[in-house]
Amino acid sequence: MPDFIIYNTTILSMDEGKPHNVIQGNLHIKDGIITGIAPPSLYNSTENNKRETALIDGSNFIIMPGLVNCHGHAAMSLFRGIADDLPLHEWLIKNIWPKEFRLKKEDVYWGTMLSIAEMIRSGTTTFTDMYFLMEEVAKAIEVSGMRGVLSRGMGGIGIMKKNAWRETNNLINNWQGKANGRIKIILGPHAVYTCSPDYLKKIRDFAAKVNLPLQIHLSETKWEVDHSMKKYGLTPVEMLNNLGIFEHQVICSHCVHLSINDLRIFENKKPGIVHNPSSNLKLGSGIAPVKTLLEAGLNVGLGTDGAASNNNLNMFEEMHIASLLAKGINNDPTQIPARTSLEMATCKGAEILGIQKIGRIKEGYRADIIGINKKRPHLSPLHEVEAQLVYSAIGSDVELVMVDGKLLMNKGELLTLDEERIMHEAEKRAFRFKHKGITNLKTSE
Amino acid sequence: MPDFIIYNTTILSMDEGKPHNVIQGNLHIKDGIITGIAPPSLYNSTENNKRETALIDGSNFIIMPGLVNCHGHAAMSLFRGIADDLPLHEWLIKNIWPKEFRLKKEDVYWGTMLSIAEMIRSGTTTFTDMYFLMEEVAKAIEVSGMRGVLSRGMGGIGIMKKNAWRETNNLINNWQGKANGRIKIILGPHAVYTCSPDYLKKIRDFAAKVNLPLQIHLSETKWEVDHSMKKYGLTPVEMLNNLGIFEHQVICSHCVHLSINDLRIFENKKPGIVHNPSSNLKLGSGIAPVKTLLEAGLNVGLGTDGAASNNNLNMFEEMHIASLLAKGINNDPTQIPARTSLEMATCKGAEILGIQKIGRIKEGYRADIIGINKKRPHLSPLHEVEAQLVYSAIGSDVELVMVDGKLLMNKGELLTLDEERIMHEAEKRAFRFKHKGITNLKTSE
Repeated sequence: MPDFIIYNTTILSMDEGKPHNVIQGNLHIKDGIITGIAPPSLYNSTENNKRETALIDGSNFIIMPGLVNCHGHAAMSLFRGIADDLPLHEWLIKNIWPKEFRLKKEDVYWGTMLSIAEMIRSGTTTFTDMYFLMEEVAKAIEVSGMRGVLSRGMGGIGIMKKNAWRETNNLINNWQGKANGRIKIILGPHAVYTCSPDYLKKIRDFAAKVNLPLQIHLSETKWEVDHSMKKYGLTPVEMLNNLGIFEHQVICSHCVHLSINDLRIFENKKPGIVHNPSSNLKLGSGIAPVKTLLEAGLNVGLGTDGAASNNNLNMFEEMHIASLLAKGINNDPTQIPARTSLEMATCKGAEILGIQKIGRIKEGYRADIIGINKKRPHLSPLHEVEAQLVYSAIGSDVELVMVDGKLLMNKGELLTLDEERIMHEAEKRAFRFKHKGITNLKTSE
Repeated sequence: MPDFIIYNTTILSMDEGKPHNVIQGNLHIKDGIITGIAPPSLYNSTENNKRETALIDGSNFIIMPGLVNCHGHAAMSLFRGIADDLPLHEWLIKNIWPKEFRLKKEDVYWGTMLSIAEMIRSGTTTFTDMYFLMEEVAKAIEVSGMRGVLSRGMGGIGIMKKNAWRETNNLINNWQGKANGRIKIILGPHAVYTCSPDYLKKIRDFAAKVNLPLQIHLSETKWEVDHSMKKYGLTPVEMLNNLGIFEHQVICSHCVHLSINDLRIFENKKPGIVHNPSSNLKLGSGIAPVKTLLEAGLNVGLGTDGAASNNNLNMFEEMHIASLLAKGINNDPTQIPARTSLEMATCKGAEILGIQKIGRIKEGYRADIIGINKKRPHLSPLHEVEAQLVYSAIGSDVELVMVDGKLLMNKGELLTLDEERIMHEAEKRAFRFKHKGITNLKTSE
């Protein structure tokens, strides 16, 4: 692995000690680790030949920590746009679940690869996944160079239930810590409405035994909360609390419909929360009370959810929408300033996932970084780096992506992936699902 | 002007007679006009040399009508990111207005050019502008090849009031119908809170005399409505109605805070409405009741507003956010489906602005078209063209832009603009405003 100096560049460090820390300087990277930031200087190609270190001209870049996508289902990119603008249950039960039953290993592999290509292109360096046939996702991470937090979805319905324990065990045994430590396996109870209390208890006990965190869909829809109240007399949050789940590290995705007692439990137990603004809006689920969750001192990260309900995996859009939405629904333009969205998408996300030393540009941190080309009309004039990244930048402004000190994209070219082949393989597989099943698809032709 | 055939391409026509009209074919363009769509065929370079017609391989493209940005203040790109995450009045009165007083002709010209570069890059072919020193905007349109609907803002405060009549008259006399008909001048009373009833009457009478439409900021904030109720006992919409303004063609921007009587007036008078979702969210103004406005049979277009309150001019984001937001706040994923956002951003926008024969791909229409590169991971698999454009596409997917049959961008290169120089000139001017003292301006309110 070569060492790198990205010279004469603009660095947004997200260093917690320095709240508005935009530095002009040279970023030094050795053995996959950020070794420091030096004063800006120029190099030339002659010097380049003399060195072991690869020199990258950073003068057109804003360098910032790679984005951390805290919730998703990567292989669902195969279903992108296949069933939009539909009521939630028609979408999920009539369209998505019947298709998922038909997914094969290769489908999951190529769907995940398609998502990884999109995520690298839009600046994500770590993603979280909950699905099935997850060893295929682990393989895709190994090949692509991405970092991932993976769980086999464990739930009481269909494909999610079948083989859940066996696949979870295999995933842990075969992949925990693999790919030079870039793969982290956690447990994935799907949701309170798809896991019985007994099933959740089993997962809880197993989590204690193997000492692993959990991720769960929680209070995503009003239907979910109503269902839980009717069946158990408890909200989904109260149910998890009663079962002692919050005594473990838990990543709670969505958290749209929360009671005052739910908020009290959260305030006390401090689980990690993942805000998925695009998916929650698109499915008509509602809007998570992020302002209140932040005021309660919780760590909130951002997620895209799967491409079937978003329909993209572009974390720049999640940052943008998270900030805009909080201002709009609270009638308060000071809510979720740019800095807060950037934190959710980087260092706070890393904390929630329990990954050490990523999400900031800081000596001793892993070199998971991205370079945004700032020489674009929509990023000009660059009065304020943080605002520009959240309110003006788009995913395609990312031209350089490095994970663990290895370049995954440079000059806009993916270096570890054959993008043409990935699109070909994914499309070939995805088109099997078009015009099939129970759906009332609008045709385009 | 060469004639064009864009061959073997995917065409989203937005033709009203054909609601899901995605056609694979060849698009023919002659003398700036769409002359028809022929069955797909292939050409080679030998044939190309034999013809007067320029051949463009469209096999990687979705070709659709160019986007119509129905509300904005182009020169404000100079203030992009200069004052974010602030309460509205601190933003406007302490930050923006004092800076606007200092703007010179060249500032408006280069700020507008910067916005035009951004808009072309993200697929906008027509924009609407309300500002001052508007002859500079007209010049920028002439040079760039864009299409524009321009008004000199006429209002009761500061720079907007000064010279408003003289500049409006000059704009009409010097620029109406110029640039091969691409420039349309209308009247721009700023808002009910900045124009007295007498001033609005004068503008109304002038509009009748010169037979021109008007555009106005209307019921953008709760403050504006409260102020109008307190001062006049009327909502801003009621005020305009009482003054007979709605007897003329009016483009009403924002329309966030509407009473039931406002809606009755709208239903009866059918003004054009411009939804600016990003700007309304970002300033904490609220969310326009688009669902209700559409149900009332009104034409609704989309606008970015200025880059100081958005902070970009990317109509793909407005389409995306318009659809997501309507679903989220109505808890209904069927609201504003992709097709509706596409209509707002193309044919409906054109209708509101009163421009004939743009906004659709149809024989006899002006060749204002854009080409979206569909070979991108985030647009794959292409199950459904309309959903992909609204929920997955980003502005930078646009690689070809044509206005009035002239290429403004091809293969991602701007053909009529020197982008480097524009960014340089705009930045040089914009940085005069950075880190300057904040003046405490007294408003006339």
